[in-house]
Amino acid sequence: MKAAVLHAYNTPLRFEEVPNPVITEPTEVIIKVAGAGVCHTDLHIIEGIWAETLDQKLPYIIGHENAGWVHEIGSAVTNFKVGDPVILHPVSSCGKCLSCRSGEDMHCENMKFSGLTVDGGYAEYLKTSERALIKLPENVDPVDVAPFADAGITAYRAVRKAAPFAKPGTKVVMIGMGGLGHIGVQVMRELGNSDIITVDRDEQRLNSTLELGASHIVKADDQMISQVKKLTDEKGADIIIDFVGSDQTHLDSMKMLRKGGHYFVVGYGGTVNVPSLNIINNEFSIVGSLVGNYNELYELMELYARGKVKLHFTKFPFEQANEVLELLSKGKINGRAILVP
Amino acid sequence: MKAAVLHAYNTPLRFEEVPNPVITEPTEVIIKVAGAGVCHTDLHIIEGIWAETLDQKLPYIIGHENAGWVHEIGSAVTNFKVGDPVILHPVSSCGKCLSCRSGEDMHCENMKFSGLTVDGGYAEYLKTSERALIKLPENVDPVDVAPFADAGITAYRAVRKAAPFAKPGTKVVMIGMGGLGHIGVQVMRELGNSDIITVDRDEQRLNSTLELGASHIVKADDQMISQVKKLTDEKGADIIIDFVGSDQTHLDSMKMLRKGGHYFVVGYGGTVNVPSLNIINNEFSIVGSLVGNYNELYELMELYARGKVKLHFTKFPFEQANEVLELLSKGKINGRAILVP
Amino acid sequence: MKAAVLHAYNTPLRFEEVPNPVITEPTEVIIKVAGAGVCHTDLHIIEGIWAETLDQKLPYIIGHENAGWVHEIGSAVTNFKVGDPVILHPVSSCGKCLSCRSGEDMHCENMKFSGLTVDGGYAEYLKTSERALIKLPENVDPVDVAPFADAGITAYRAVRKAAPFAKPGTKVVMIGMGGLGHIGVQVMRELGNSDIITVDRDEQRLNSTLELGASHIVKADDQMISQVKKLTDEKGADIIIDFVGSDQTHLDSMKMLRKGGHYFVVGYGGTVNVPSLNIINNEFSIVGSLVGNYNELYELMELYARGKVKLHFTKFPFEQANEVLELLSKGKINGRAILVP
Amino acid sequence: MKAAVLHAYNTPLRFEEVPNPVITEPTEVIIKVAGAGVCHTDLHIIEGIWAETLDQKLPYIIGHENAGWVHEIGSAVTNFKVGDPVILHPVSSCGKCLSCRSGEDMHCENMKFSGLTVDGGYAEYLKTSERALIKLPENVDPVDVAPFADAGITAYRAVRKAAPFAKPGTKVVMIGMGGLGHIGVQVMRELGNSDIITVDRDEQRLNSTLELGASHIVKADDQMISQVKKLTDEKGADIIIDFVGSDQTHLDSMKMLRKGGHYFVVGYGGTVNVPSLNIINNEFSIVGSLVGNYNELYELMELYARGKVKLHFTKFPFEQANEVLELLSKGKINGRAILVP
Repeated sequence: MKAAVLHAYNTPLRFEEVPNPVITEPTEVIIKVAGAGVCHTDLHIIEGIWAETLDQKLPYIIGHENAGWVHEIGSAVTNFKVGDPVILHPVSSCGKCLSCRSGEDMHCENMKFSGLTVDGGYAEYLKTSERALIKLPENVDPVDVAPFADAGITAYRAVRKAAPFAKPGTKVVMIGMGGLGHIGVQVMRELGNSDIITVDRDEQRLNSTLELGASHIVKADDQMISQVKKLTDEKGADIIIDFVGSDQTHLDSMKMLRKGGHYFVVGYGGTVNVPSLNIINNEFSIVGSLVGNYNELYELMELYARGKVKLHFTKFPFEQANEVLELLSKGKINGRAILVP
Repeated sequence: MKAAVLHAYNTPLRFEEVPNPVITEPTEVIIKVAGAGVCHTDLHIIEGIWAETLDQKLPYIIGHENAGWVHEIGSAVTNFKVGDPVILHPVSSCGKCLSCRSGEDMHCENMKFSGLTVDGGYAEYLKTSERALIKLPENVDPVDVAPFADAGITAYRAVRKAAPFAKPGTKVVMIGMGGLGHIGVQVMRELGNSDIITVDRDEQRLNSTLELGASHIVKADDQMISQVKKLTDEKGADIIIDFVGSDQTHLDSMKMLRKGGHYFVVGYGGTVNVPSLNIINNEFSIVGSLVGNYNELYELMELYARGKVKLHFTKFPFEQANEVLELLSKGKINGRAILVP
Repeated sequence: MKAAVLHAYNTPLRFEEVPNPVITEPTEVIIKVAGAGVCHTDLHIIEGIWAETLDQKLPYIIGHENAGWVHEIGSAVTNFKVGDPVILHPVSSCGKCLSCRSGEDMHCENMKFSGLTVDGGYAEYLKTSERALIKLPENVDPVDVAPFADAGITAYRAVRKAAPFAKPGTKVVMIGMGGLGHIGVQVMRELGNSDIITVDRDEQRLNSTLELGASHIVKADDQMISQVKKLTDEKGADIIIDFVGSDQTHLDSMKMLRKGGHYFVVGYGGTVNVPSLNIINNEFSIVGSLVGNYNELYELMELYARGKVKLHFTKFPFEQANEVLELLSKGKINGRAILVP
Repeated sequence: MKAAVLHAYNTPLRFEEVPNPVITEPTEVIIKVAGAGVCHTDLHIIEGIWAETLDQKLPYIIGHENAGWVHEIGSAVTNFKVGDPVILHPVSSCGKCLSCRSGEDMHCENMKFSGLTVDGGYAEYLKTSERALIKLPENVDPVDVAPFADAGITAYRAVRKAAPFAKPGTKVVMIGMGGLGHIGVQVMRELGNSDIITVDRDEQRLNSTLELGASHIVKADDQMISQVKKLTDEKGADIIIDFVGSDQTHLDSMKMLRKGGHYFVVGYGGTVNVPSLNIINNEFSIVGSLVGNYNELYELMELYARGKVKLHFTKFPFEQANEVLELLSKGKINGRAILVP
């Protein structure tokens, strides 16, 4: 099959013919890829910032945001048959460790993460396991939902963690209205009851969030903090969800957060730096959120099926992967880009 | 009355005759002080590190950890009479704002904090409000419980936040076995079900925690991280509660915390500094804890009444306040020091 | 002032001149009544079914769903001034007991319940306390929001208890689309993410709920259970909220509830009767919900202010109280009736 | 192999030679039974009261509380090898449905319940699946822990549901100090912080609970309700856990429960019968608890490993199954009886 392969950090992906994946365990499944979303994490992988953390050997195929059709099934697979349209949770989890048994696939002790620790979806075919699959309704084209597989659940999980605090009368600031952010706003509108304030550098993106659930928009410039203060009776936001994660957004967030507030870190790349006097005197909670689990993906797909969450995306031919990554790094992708093999 | 007054930052307290406090609101109460605990926060106040945060004018009387007897009551006070032995929640809260109405006295919009924003208990008498009082059983000497008023609830609230995660089979690291820490260990033994690992520089303190609920003790030296790793199957602790809060303990904690772990910041003075990649990839929660609310003090006093929590303390004559503060700053107070006027 | 007074159970209210209420405590407030909602509980009080429970002496003035303007304030009242438009939480709570301090006004150990244990709002003036008041925006006419004071928060609290279980992909059945129910549906739409199935005997009421958030409507007849089963894949509803509370709705609910389901009892009058084998084998939770607390009323008013909840009501002259109660008992009031003095 | 087989309701078990179980799925495991606990549910099964609910065909082998050694493993089993000592969660769950994925094995859509819906452990060998197994430490004899497999987790889950309400200063009543109850008291002592009041008809059993964590004991006679009232300041218990579940205990519990209280139904056989006026006015929660999930069994075994929970049991030769069931029905088993094949 054809695949886009990462051979060395900070080099373009190479398009190659590679062997098709082969089933070796009874619970495994081969998927024919319909579409693979392009994510900032793909950029971070190529930059090598995950290299030490993952200890993953090159070359391999990236792409962790996948949907497609069941192409072949292992002997123990019971709930799927060849041809079923599916979206893929990005992780193959074992289903036997304590984390799996409490629903936390992302903390599985034996997990395989497609496109991060095993071959991913920038290819014609992809191997995963039955536990990673969610069946799609017949009338849904897998390519149209691929971004839910990672951007979607990452936004969903962060909002779901925040939702218990998003009571009527509270204010939430959501930073970064790109691929994750534009989903996050909609999910917050559905799961929470805060007034939503969206923040981005791009006015067009900001404006589009007014239709997705934002009550107020604030441009990310040197007036941002004072504007957020003004919109929150000078008290700051009860909740901040940061889809960017730069030094700047970390610093600003600590200034825009209300006493007793919750700061959810979703984007990454910068460093959180805050005196513990501030943390205790303001009783802040700083909470990381990592992708999402299977049940969260299931819930998100239910919201989608009922028309509550819409995706902005653009399809690109698989062969343009490097160009698309370049556009993404420059902030020139609106919503999500999807590669179609 | 006589009082120990702070006239300028980084100078000793001055012992003076000052006017007795006077009731001006119907809900107020004058307390005859039985004892006032001496806290690291008193040191921090004198050093001036709260000056900007609190915007409090000097001179004033410090001391936020008080117990005594009701000396005089306002006209609207209904639940207390002159002579009642009481412990004082450190904050006079209004009882009308949304924070008060959800039990969060520490976030009261109109709060007065004895010894931080209004005159405190390094004196013969102290003014507070009815809402701050908890009646003591007849057989309890107020001076013996004064440290619960701040050290106690501060440890209690942090442990109570941690307890839902302290399930059987988990490990908790508790850093700093001084005034707060030695209470915290006992509360964790009662409220949680984790294996408790205590950390301190002082071996004698460490050893004493084995009788208070610790399963393992680890000396705070350059072997600490590897020892904690060894005691946690190389995975790190599910929970860390940091009663110290220095640059060093913040840094070390991020290295000793397990994936999905919770880090509770109670002590302060340092800076938390952590790349957001670590926060998200490990899905850490970094949670500030600020003193505690009235109901938490009530619960702690219930544990005490049933013999579940014991205090280590030494009484000093009120006039030795400056010497005691000096000893505390040098780490030479075991448990808690109490000033007796 | 004029008032509608209950002199004996099962007799009409008598319209009389009675002395105006007088402030006797510094925290009290006199309200000029703008409107008083008419509730099934008023019928139950007149029938005497609360007589034993409340041990309330006759005669007294009923009416527990009130809004109006501040007419006079006690000396300790700080947040309100004469003329302020307000809605009244139905309970004067003490603010000092443990229940109040955890926000649970309905479990206050010293509570006064307007219209149940002290004189209520079927009158020109009413005495309550500062803690019961929520200020209304200038542009809101108090009479238009009076039903939130009881019907509103009673529906709100029940839904708020249910909301954590109302995840995307679940189904909720809501029984009884009268005064409480039509608010409950809207609150469930805002706070939850279940598919909402409404049940009532009246087709017109049912149809109107389709605009308020219901996805499906089911007539309360002998096909009801099978229809609900059909709408829930034969598994039953994850959540049932019963605003009626008759023997029949209790019985039916146990047949329409899914394994692991939650049944919230809000209406009352019947008897819940269920073998414990069913309770344990299905792991049912049967949960009572009682009015709501102050913070819940605050949250509901925030939803209202943002246009998220609308009230159906009809105003009647205060003198028609007995006729309105008669109409209500016959199921002939749509939404809520409000008496205007 | 030899087995005790139920051929008809309300007849004794028959001791027979039956074929050994055979692995047919790759995830299955054959266990050599070390011991099988004898449970009131076994009596209820034989009485036929589960017949309609389970729709299970006779004859089959009962016994749902099992421990032993791995005897044979399917091809997909990865975490166990022949000879491993294990305790068996009573349910084989699929690991793929939404219930399994949120940790709720008891609500698995494809579950097999050993001894209820498939052959159980009153036999030499038993078939289950890998997901049901927890490995025991080398020094633990499986027979000594068998009762944890059902009595243990059933008590554990109920207490775990109650624990968030069991704050210092609250009171819990635990009814029935037999097999489940004597474990429940110890678990409540570990997981909760309430004062524990135990209730039973048998004074010897009651007295023994004073060593297990009870603060007060109350004989189940006509003074019971007034005694419990006296021990709870006439307010009733915050929490009641009912391990008996008869008409009488259901009725009594509603009279001993405090406003806002939680009643956990674990035992069964009677009917809960309570006017909805009581449920709403007292804001009661009546909560069923069904066995427990795998993670709960894991946590319980952790408590056991740390010496926090002790079992009272008596071993009987497997062939005495009918005699033991007879003794149990007469209340003549203290703690738990275990059949040893």
